[in-house]
Amino acid sequence: MTQQDNNVTEATTSISGGKEAPEILSNQPAPEQAAEVARDLQRVLDGEFPEARATMREILNDKTMRPLAGLPLEEARAITTEKLFKVLESGLPHGVFRPEQGGTGKIGESLVSIEMLGHADLSLMVKSGVQWGLWGSAVGNLGTERHYKLVEDTINLRALGCFAMTERGHGSDVQSIETTAHYDPETQEFILNSPTASSEKFYIGNAARDGRWAAVFCQLYTPGNEESHGVHCIVARIREEDGSPIEGVRLGDHGHKGGLIGVDNGTMMFDHYRVPRENLLNRFADVDEAGNYSSAIENPNRRFFTMLGALVRGRVTVGAAAGAATRTALDIATTYANLRRQFASDESLPEKRLIEHRKHRLRLIPAIAKSYGLQFATNTLISRVTELDRRGVDPTDMTKEQEADQRELEAHAAALKAANTRHATDTIQDMREACGGAGYMSENLLTSIKADSDIFTTFEGDNVVMLQLAGKELMTGFAKELGGLKPLEMVRFGLDSFGSLLRRRTAADAIIQNLQDTFTDSEETSLFDPANQVKLLTERENRLMLSLARRLSPARKMDVADAAEVVDKAQDHLLAVAEAHVDRIIFEAFLDAESKLTTLQGKKVFEQVRDVYFLSLIVDNASWYLEQNLLSGTRTKAARAALNDLVDSLGPWSQTLVDAFGVPSQLRELSLMEPYEAMTPVCEFNPSKGPK
Amino acid sequence: MTQQDNNVTEATTSISGGKEAPEILSNQPAPEQAAEVARDLQRVLDGEFPEARATMREILNDKTMRPLAGLPLEEARAITTEKLFKVLESGLPHGVFRPEQGGTGKIGESLVSIEMLGHADLSLMVKSGVQWGLWGSAVGNLGTERHYKLVEDTINLRALGCFAMTERGHGSDVQSIETTAHYDPETQEFILNSPTASSEKFYIGNAARDGRWAAVFCQLYTPGNEESHGVHCIVARIREEDGSPIEGVRLGDHGHKGGLIGVDNGTMMFDHYRVPRENLLNRFADVDEAGNYSSAIENPNRRFFTMLGALVRGRVTVGAAAGAATRTALDIATTYANLRRQFASDESLPEKRLIEHRKHRLRLIPAIAKSYGLQFATNTLISRVTELDRRGVDPTDMTKEQEADQRELEAHAAALKAANTRHATDTIQDMREACGGAGYMSENLLTSIKADSDIFTTFEGDNVVMLQLAGKELMTGFAKELGGLKPLEMVRFGLDSFGSLLRRRTAADAIIQNLQDTFTDSEETSLFDPANQVKLLTERENRLMLSLARRLSPARKMDVADAAEVVDKAQDHLLAVAEAHVDRIIFEAFLDAESKLTTLQGKKVFEQVRDVYFLSLIVDNASWYLEQNLLSGTRTKAARAALNDLVDSLGPWSQTLVDAFGVPSQLRELSLMEPYEAMTPVCEFNPSKGPK
Repeated sequence: MTQQDNNVTEATTSISGGKEAPEILSNQPAPEQAAEVARDLQRVLDGEFPEARATMREILNDKTMRPLAGLPLEEARAITTEKLFKVLESGLPHGVFRPEQGGTGKIGESLVSIEMLGHADLSLMVKSGVQWGLWGSAVGNLGTERHYKLVEDTINLRALGCFAMTERGHGSDVQSIETTAHYDPETQEFILNSPTASSEKFYIGNAARDGRWAAVFCQLYTPGNEESHGVHCIVARIREEDGSPIEGVRLGDHGHKGGLIGVDNGTMMFDHYRVPRENLLNRFADVDEAGNYSSAIENPNRRFFTMLGALVRGRVTVGAAAGAATRTALDIATTYANLRRQFASDESLPEKRLIEHRKHRLRLIPAIAKSYGLQFATNTLISRVTELDRRGVDPTDMTKEQEADQRELEAHAAALKAANTRHATDTIQDMREACGGAGYMSENLLTSIKADSDIFTTFEGDNVVMLQLAGKELMTGFAKELGGLKPLEMVRFGLDSFGSLLRRRTAADAIIQNLQDTFTDSEETSLFDPANQVKLLTERENRLMLSLARRLSPARKMDVADAAEVVDKAQDHLLAVAEAHVDRIIFEAFLDAESKLTTLQGKKVFEQVRDVYFLSLIVDNASWYLEQNLLSGTRTKAARAALNDLVDSLGPWSQTLVDAFGVPSQLRELSLMEPYEAMTPVCEFNPSKGPK
Repeated sequence: MTQQDNNVTEATTSISGGKEAPEILSNQPAPEQAAEVARDLQRVLDGEFPEARATMREILNDKTMRPLAGLPLEEARAITTEKLFKVLESGLPHGVFRPEQGGTGKIGESLVSIEMLGHADLSLMVKSGVQWGLWGSAVGNLGTERHYKLVEDTINLRALGCFAMTERGHGSDVQSIETTAHYDPETQEFILNSPTASSEKFYIGNAARDGRWAAVFCQLYTPGNEESHGVHCIVARIREEDGSPIEGVRLGDHGHKGGLIGVDNGTMMFDHYRVPRENLLNRFADVDEAGNYSSAIENPNRRFFTMLGALVRGRVTVGAAAGAATRTALDIATTYANLRRQFASDESLPEKRLIEHRKHRLRLIPAIAKSYGLQFATNTLISRVTELDRRGVDPTDMTKEQEADQRELEAHAAALKAANTRHATDTIQDMREACGGAGYMSENLLTSIKADSDIFTTFEGDNVVMLQLAGKELMTGFAKELGGLKPLEMVRFGLDSFGSLLRRRTAADAIIQNLQDTFTDSEETSLFDPANQVKLLTERENRLMLSLARRLSPARKMDVADAAEVVDKAQDHLLAVAEAHVDRIIFEAFLDAESKLTTLQGKKVFEQVRDVYFLSLIVDNASWYLEQNLLSGTRTKAARAALNDLVDSLGPWSQTLVDAFGVPSQLRELSLMEPYEAMTPVCEFNPSKGPK
């Protein structure tokens, strides 16, 4: 929780050396003006694929697509499976696959469409993700022509499949999985086996009920090789058409979960189960009839990570859908705050709307601002995935630059996955609380959004692991750029440079260059100055990287165990690097989006949203800025006071800000916090008579 | 999230001016030593009523009391109602009521017993709280001898009842409720009526299914008086014995909720429903046959708050039970962290247990430390409720001192309710995440603990309202003590004084006096020195109160609307005062508990737990201490590093720390994160065969 200082009552005097203060926006916007601003903001928020979003909004407003809470497990599963066919109509699944596989190759549209499902029904989003994104992409990206028929059946829901990677004993460390596949040249089959209890496939979506197929990740063995060739993927039938498990496959049901009960997660084990040689997904490695292993990628480690490259899209959509779910929660709670009256300041005054309480504004508006930033950054990420896909890089033969691009993309996806899902978990919880008891009633969606989104911080890559991955990638790049410098020089270099040493290409490149060119730094520079804002965020990222580099450098000369100890002790530091990085990336996405607005009033509102995001970061990290002498206590206090001023100014615009999210309107209607209609009247009764 | 600085690698040099560092405890305690320490700690955690805790542990280990997840609504409700009879056997309900009412008056034991229910089943805790704590206490505390028979039936579950206070339009501001009761002298009846849609009784426990009675809070009118006499409470039958609603009463069902589905929350409206005059709970006000109103308490406002005094126990138990639920979650996640292996630091090294990752220790151990502190503070609160009850104060005729005691108790209960439930919501979420996918499976309890406890931040007094109440009470006392001083003098007085201006009596009074007497302040004083720790926490509370007093003082001369504006703008400041207060109260409860330990090793471990709690506060509020120049950047960085050292030191003791919570053993067994047994095998299969 942010610690309030509050010694400063006059907010903005010292935030900008007395030069400026935030303009206070008009008290309550006229409806037409508000609508115009909402349209302008929505256009920018919708990003590169507005048609895909529009299509999905229409589908999600269909009555059959209403989210349903409190259903029995089997009913929830059946309804979710039915809804998949509605998603199929949208053309979304076809976008995931290349034309030669029966798809359209519209990857950007498909990613955005999956994101949109997150507004309404995370079970459906995950079920879609499992079917087309994980199972489908495994077959599509790791397979070859001989698997195209299966891809087609997958698109059209004739082949429902599982992505059988995680094992009971191995979640995030996939390279350690224990399921084996031994090749038998006599029958030209692979023998799938689960040798230990910890090798059981676990939490596998589609496994408990619907799945007929599975993409089984396993250690691959060929005759004459004692060692595994590493993790590979083999497709296997797991159920007969009638739903009974195939002999040699044992399937289990995880039953009820904390959320996502529309997704049938289950377990899977193999008892020397034989599948044809052709079931190996052989794009990156193959075994010939005689049992000879070959791969275009020599290095087993590189091969493994190339195969896992497909996971990146899963991470992108998990983050993006968590973002959409958060926006629905913000929409519900903000609409409620603008309607609900509670407490008068004094008996003689009318009861105030919730939004008129400052503490309530401080709950809603910084969270809305962060959702804006995350959506911009996620849009940018989706555009980059699309762009890389369009370029059609051959993963077996990448240039150094392409490899760096790919790694950077993965680091970004990981960092944004963590940031989006962390924000989701925190904000959805807070919005539930902001709606009081009404927020706890199932018909108001908030509790099911909460329950369903909860696992998003953990699955598709645990957030701690994701941030480590991003942090390590950043440090690797950093070490390269700084290779020759000694620690002391590094410090000097770091502190003297404006902008990041390793400022990865972002959408806002030109804008930032321009800001840098015109920027003059001084103690008095305003915290509202975007150039100064970029500088302060960049400084944090750079200094954290520098100090981490210093901290880790002795490890190079140590033995493995001691070095591991040093790295473990710096784990929180590494995570802080990744967080600082993603904070800056989001901010730059704000700057990029800002340039696309067309209305004056839209720009004014937007600028304050950006300032709220920025000042929240300063307030949350005030102790760091103070310890580093980058800001004085007077300025951090002023930042806190300015944040208060800004939420006061944006309070009357709060409804407009969430209108711009374009949450499918049915969801808000269902959640109007007037659960009267939804309740069963036990007796007929007319409450409108006055007192006798 | 705490921002890591991490420039400091050598932890403790500057935390204590180079004089000391935390002792690193033995690497892995011997089992006997660990058991001895756990016993010592548990004795102190169990507090004043260990027998009541022991009884309840036994009951909660009964197989019939197992928590069940994923049940259909009606089944969950039926099972919860059945379990009430098991709770009745414990003698808990009798403790709530005085001997002349058929109880035993063992209030402390009953409060602790309700708290213990929170370990296992929050639906059962809330259902018990509704039946005996809310409905029962309303009849018992607001009624007179003519209601004793109803009390007896309530204790023995022959009369199940509702506490019908909250209305659709009025949650926290009870004084505005709209339900009316008009007295009719002709028939000597009250006519209960719900005049508007917003007057509908809402979220009422026991209303949807089980309740036969309700304590209806309403505006009371007597003939010849246009104005309401204020909020009073009248008991009313709402259902026939067969469960059908009585004519004139409309009952609704809230249906499925985000959690607590074992509790049948519903709605209630009245259509000119007549009940006998004697149904008025007439301890504090009465209406005679002719319709004359009388009350021993003249002031309607005071009368209202006297009637609401009974609510204090509800708040105490809600906070306490949230604390117990949190301890169960910590127990599950810590046990898991000590068993589960994931990730090696290097391929050549064995996989590490989760607890061996520092980030994981930083997740678990500060949360465990805070749970210790909250339990100590809650124990103290329960002891004070018991003590006040023993004194048998007449609420209609209190001395000034008794009134102050009562108000202070209410403020403490409110502040601790908020602190306990905030900690619960944050920690249970984090423990779910700390267990990864396993934590999301319903059989492992964490998700139902999460869902059930979620509403605790909102109900029985929304946390924001609770903290405001506590903050206002503190400021009132503060203003009295400082009445004569001008702002500048106040500042001087505040800054020069050691200890709080308004240090309310806490259990640790003598200990703190002793610390003060021997304390010499200096820049170099160690952050491990308990006297310095008290001083730093007290300074924060005092300074926040002083600055708030300065900020609010102009409001005295303003008109109501302007003054209300000033107060609203300072809302976050007021909440910060309450938070600083409760942080200190908890810390002092630590000091009190420390003095009761009997083993040397127990004391060593305990001291580090206390230091973790203290340093977490310093780290969380570092920006404030820096802005106030109370700590230098070097020291706040050192505090962060020392916190890291401490969680390293306590890591091997983490299992011992949660063992000491004495969570009913059945719960840990059920949650061993080996959900293998709980799954339905789809086909018979023996996984133990090795690879072919």
